[in-house]
Amino acid sequence: MIIVLKSHSSLKEVKTVEKAVRDLGYDPHTIRGVVRTVVAAVGDETSHQSLEILESLNCVERVIPIQKRYKLVSREAQPGTTQIKVGPLTIGGGTFHVIAGPCSVESMEQMLAIAKAVKAAGATLLRGGVFKPRTSPYDFQGLGIEGLAILKAAKQAVGLPIVSEITRQTDLNSMLDVVDVLQIGARNAMNYSLLEAVAKSGKPVLLKRGMASTVEEWLLAAEYIAKNGNPNVILCERGIRTFENATRNTLDISAVALAKQECNLPVFVDPSHAAGRRDLIPALSKAAIATGADGLMIEVHNHPEEALSDSSQQLTPQKFAQLIKSLAPLLKASDMKIGKVK
Amino acid sequence: MIIVLKSHSSLKEVKTVEKAVRDLGYDPHTIRGVVRTVVAAVGDETSHQSLEILESLNCVERVIPIQKRYKLVSREAQPGTTQIKVGPLTIGGGTFHVIAGPCSVESMEQMLAIAKAVKAAGATLLRGGVFKPRTSPYDFQGLGIEGLAILKAAKQAVGLPIVSEITRQTDLNSMLDVVDVLQIGARNAMNYSLLEAVAKSGKPVLLKRGMASTVEEWLLAAEYIAKNGNPNVILCERGIRTFENATRNTLDISAVALAKQECNLPVFVDPSHAAGRRDLIPALSKAAIATGADGLMIEVHNHPEEALSDSSQQLTPQKFAQLIKSLAPLLKASDMKIGKVK
Amino acid sequence: MIIVLKSHSSLKEVKTVEKAVRDLGYDPHTIRGVVRTVVAAVGDETSHQSLEILESLNCVERVIPIQKRYKLVSREAQPGTTQIKVGPLTIGGGTFHVIAGPCSVESMEQMLAIAKAVKAAGATLLRGGVFKPRTSPYDFQGLGIEGLAILKAAKQAVGLPIVSEITRQTDLNSMLDVVDVLQIGARNAMNYSLLEAVAKSGKPVLLKRGMASTVEEWLLAAEYIAKNGNPNVILCERGIRTFENATRNTLDISAVALAKQECNLPVFVDPSHAAGRRDLIPALSKAAIATGADGLMIEVHNHPEEALSDSSQQLTPQKFAQLIKSLAPLLKASDMKIGKVK
Amino acid sequence: MIIVLKSHSSLKEVKTVEKAVRDLGYDPHTIRGVVRTVVAAVGDETSHQSLEILESLNCVERVIPIQKRYKLVSREAQPGTTQIKVGPLTIGGGTFHVIAGPCSVESMEQMLAIAKAVKAAGATLLRGGVFKPRTSPYDFQGLGIEGLAILKAAKQAVGLPIVSEITRQTDLNSMLDVVDVLQIGARNAMNYSLLEAVAKSGKPVLLKRGMASTVEEWLLAAEYIAKNGNPNVILCERGIRTFENATRNTLDISAVALAKQECNLPVFVDPSHAAGRRDLIPALSKAAIATGADGLMIEVHNHPEEALSDSSQQLTPQKFAQLIKSLAPLLKASDMKIGKVK
Repeated sequence: MIIVLKSHSSLKEVKTVEKAVRDLGYDPHTIRGVVRTVVAAVGDETSHQSLEILESLNCVERVIPIQKRYKLVSREAQPGTTQIKVGPLTIGGGTFHVIAGPCSVESMEQMLAIAKAVKAAGATLLRGGVFKPRTSPYDFQGLGIEGLAILKAAKQAVGLPIVSEITRQTDLNSMLDVVDVLQIGARNAMNYSLLEAVAKSGKPVLLKRGMASTVEEWLLAAEYIAKNGNPNVILCERGIRTFENATRNTLDISAVALAKQECNLPVFVDPSHAAGRRDLIPALSKAAIATGADGLMIEVHNHPEEALSDSSQQLTPQKFAQLIKSLAPLLKASDMKIGKVK
Repeated sequence: MIIVLKSHSSLKEVKTVEKAVRDLGYDPHTIRGVVRTVVAAVGDETSHQSLEILESLNCVERVIPIQKRYKLVSREAQPGTTQIKVGPLTIGGGTFHVIAGPCSVESMEQMLAIAKAVKAAGATLLRGGVFKPRTSPYDFQGLGIEGLAILKAAKQAVGLPIVSEITRQTDLNSMLDVVDVLQIGARNAMNYSLLEAVAKSGKPVLLKRGMASTVEEWLLAAEYIAKNGNPNVILCERGIRTFENATRNTLDISAVALAKQECNLPVFVDPSHAAGRRDLIPALSKAAIATGADGLMIEVHNHPEEALSDSSQQLTPQKFAQLIKSLAPLLKASDMKIGKVK
Repeated sequence: MIIVLKSHSSLKEVKTVEKAVRDLGYDPHTIRGVVRTVVAAVGDETSHQSLEILESLNCVERVIPIQKRYKLVSREAQPGTTQIKVGPLTIGGGTFHVIAGPCSVESMEQMLAIAKAVKAAGATLLRGGVFKPRTSPYDFQGLGIEGLAILKAAKQAVGLPIVSEITRQTDLNSMLDVVDVLQIGARNAMNYSLLEAVAKSGKPVLLKRGMASTVEEWLLAAEYIAKNGNPNVILCERGIRTFENATRNTLDISAVALAKQECNLPVFVDPSHAAGRRDLIPALSKAAIATGADGLMIEVHNHPEEALSDSSQQLTPQKFAQLIKSLAPLLKASDMKIGKVK
Repeated sequence: MIIVLKSHSSLKEVKTVEKAVRDLGYDPHTIRGVVRTVVAAVGDETSHQSLEILESLNCVERVIPIQKRYKLVSREAQPGTTQIKVGPLTIGGGTFHVIAGPCSVESMEQMLAIAKAVKAAGATLLRGGVFKPRTSPYDFQGLGIEGLAILKAAKQAVGLPIVSEITRQTDLNSMLDVVDVLQIGARNAMNYSLLEAVAKSGKPVLLKRGMASTVEEWLLAAEYIAKNGNPNVILCERGIRTFENATRNTLDISAVALAKQECNLPVFVDPSHAAGRRDLIPALSKAAIATGADGLMIEVHNHPEEALSDSSQQLTPQKFAQLIKSLAPLLKASDMKIGKVK
């Protein structure tokens, strides 16, 4: 870590900083510049917090960390991509997977129809929300337990593994019975107690990026799960909050490239939430493949105009099938095979 | 609600929209413009979600809501500011309150020393974190239950009500015994299941704005608490995420003015987290008063250079006492009395 | 346009709004909702500004425009993509083009070496800055007129058309002699007098998106050029300012898709400035192709470690040649041919 | 400057960096950490650009500047606030000034009426736009030269100095005759050639912050003017672009505090453009005073409902007079006297 002192710091102040650095277990190296003095603290920064404390000294202008703060999920810890077993599938092993299904589970009839359609089109995992975190308390909040029973029936009917969002620890047990991948949504991306709870369940986790999370914070959230004993984390970029409002969020395609480069976890992209409008989903799906994503998560509804949530961004099964077909040349060009479930 | 149709929509498409509007319980009024047709849907928008569904129709370009989405917390529902009883104090009744204390509770000695100092300087509520949501799993996570015992002792020693952050429902019972105001932090600002749980406890809640929450989303989070039977919500602006990195967050002073105008809840400002640096705290505190805030929340530590979290933004007790003194002329100019606890 | 009145507006206030709408040449249609009254103003919104005026009436809550504000550059005005002749090339006609070269022109030797290398690798246009807008007045500001002479020599040597940034009207005449495409940089994206000046020169223009421009503002900037008689505008997305600082800017890949869909101009992507780091350039270049971009603009330097500006984002000629080669399968999958200059 | 090397850099690579540092005129001090090696380069960083070049070396992870990049405008260069003479007034000398007037000059009658009203209410400078940079080419672009004649007449009538925006160098001469303070608008905040031109005119400059400018970039824009021989710069914060859209921009009140602390120039606040809505102007004006601003710039129109631009944010003369009166207690509490022109 580098400690930058304010200009005109006295010798006594420099000594104070050196002592503080030593007290915290680091070895201080002081360099007197033309205008400012800096103290380089040599030692393992794993326990970062300790030196940022020095910013509270009056003579210190800022403290600059040098090491990365995540370890277990980094490429330095493991060069290859973590392969995650989900039912019959392996995610992160060079096969491209598409998670598809409605925003919310609404009825047995709806879910079965969509499940069959997306499987026929090529999806390998089935999504459907039963506990919905909604901005307004007056909006539809999901079917809850009843929805889980519907998901279970759909899974039995088509044989696709289930991805569904968890919003509170108390739902964990009832979800474990049905759900194959626990999704942490953008609103809970920094809900660390929930991250710990899902980690300890041992189930694979799909971790969405928070709408205001930096890439570093996203990877540190994954580190929470890994540190609690669960390396099976799938990252999912779903757009960040920016000033642009032509799209619901701004898909940060560079974050996908960066996460693939820095981190050993598979990375998915959710173009539905990123765009918030169905006309852009094909283009963003293609961008995700070209950037090296390991999969997509796409909202599909058989009657979008009757959907109880996110109607404007859900594709019809027909459009979804066209989309999957249109991705084939790009997947081939990217040396990716698309997954399959019999 | 206003439904804007794509240009060149056919008569048949307009009829489809009108029927859909009628089916959803609204009365359609169609207006043919020079370039576009719009359909105004007359009816109560309380259950908003229903009409946004129409965005999924191919001929619809966008659906524009007209009514506000929060009700219970709005000035329209109650013109006066909600007065919230916290121990011997009333918040929101024209008296200005300062919540002060360390970022984290670290030891009995630390907490007692700070509690006495901030009380002597004029603080009327005592803060201290025992369950800390930290970005990295390797950072100090708070003393937990042990910290609650320390808070209890500090409360008995100085007689100030306690404000402390809750991060998961399972800690609620143990906190209720000690804590007078439950704080929802920025990272949990959209953790709706936690909002519901604290609402049902009946305790006053200090609700921080999420780092990417719009003012509307912040007020809707408060609406969740109010709708679950607890009107005792104190809003707290603590800065939002922007491109500017000279400060840790960007204090959105307009949001304070807007919340005061639109909403019937008291509004506090947290300059410590907004700035992330102690040199700006006096200026931001003054801005908060001038804008009409009902109180401040300020981090104070007796040895900031040894603090286990947020060291760079905590004031010493001496600086805090100077700050409180310096606010007096401004409070007077704003017709605000500063609160007092004997 | 839709005028939303405040709740509890009186009949007299509604009449005032209706009269104002009529005075401004629109036909008012009033719809009384359950909570609010709205007035739909029917008429051509081309001259938008007129009705936003009504927001100044005390009884008006907001005015919502319905029509799009750009016309000449819209797909509605012209469904096909504008084909732009630049020397021997056609941009926007289904052929993919790569603009390459150094951030700044530094010397004859540097420019000739790079020009030959990028041409050999497959670039079809040559870039090089001679007037550099730099954040600090103490940074290298470009070679100016001397740099133009170097660009001219490079153009003669390799036969590639030249793209170079213009920062002030007074340089226009000297640039017209050498430069084939005038670039408007992000910092001048709202410098409307400069847009008008380059428009009137008749030269093709490469218009970068401003770092805080919405897509609508970007297209309106293009509309300024088109309205001044010059339809030959190439849009260039180069990333926007967000809270994320792992990359210099955040490439808004959705904006590329949206611009292609809404607007009839060719769209390029500049991954060098978006990322600000060379390791992400290949991934972002691929994303651009997959999204439907018409070309790329990439910074290449023969000795990046000696570059006088933007050293960290410039590729070596070797890396550039590898990059171009690696794009071939993706271009093929996207039914794009790469351009060529003999 | 601190150069951070990638982990596992070889001794040879470290030597290369050391040599490069030495070649650029700095003295390298190498510190081998547990995981990474850093090289501290000792020397004057005034010419920053030189070392960032090292980021192009493959073994370098990042280069961290230590010194500040602005000099002439810093408090270190001059501890006191620069006092700027504008006609009979001194700005920055402890007297608070209010610039008021319409967004656009529209007619002689309008301008004279507003000029008299704002002077009577306490404004000490008169504003009015004659060259308007508008987002759409179809919006009103200002009266141009004719507007200047109106401004001149208004100045003679009421004796207030004139502030007006310049958008291109070619208007400079005609403006110099009438205008006392040349305003650089947010859209031209990085138009460095315009900054140089106004600097050389010697006139005081009101420099608005760009909507995506960091505080550092804003101060560096001021440094451009100072370095070109003109120290008479008034900074003006007018809100930045963020995700929040309840206000037109987000007033960055911390930036006002920071600019006052870091920089020796007077700082004004423009609550009209920050809020984009008149109901928040009083609260934001008070926040500006409390934070230590040296003045305000407020839009006033005698008939806002007929204004040709920015109608929703302009105050009537009556509301403006009330506002000024309401600021008196706060100015007194902040030890500020309000300016006066006889």
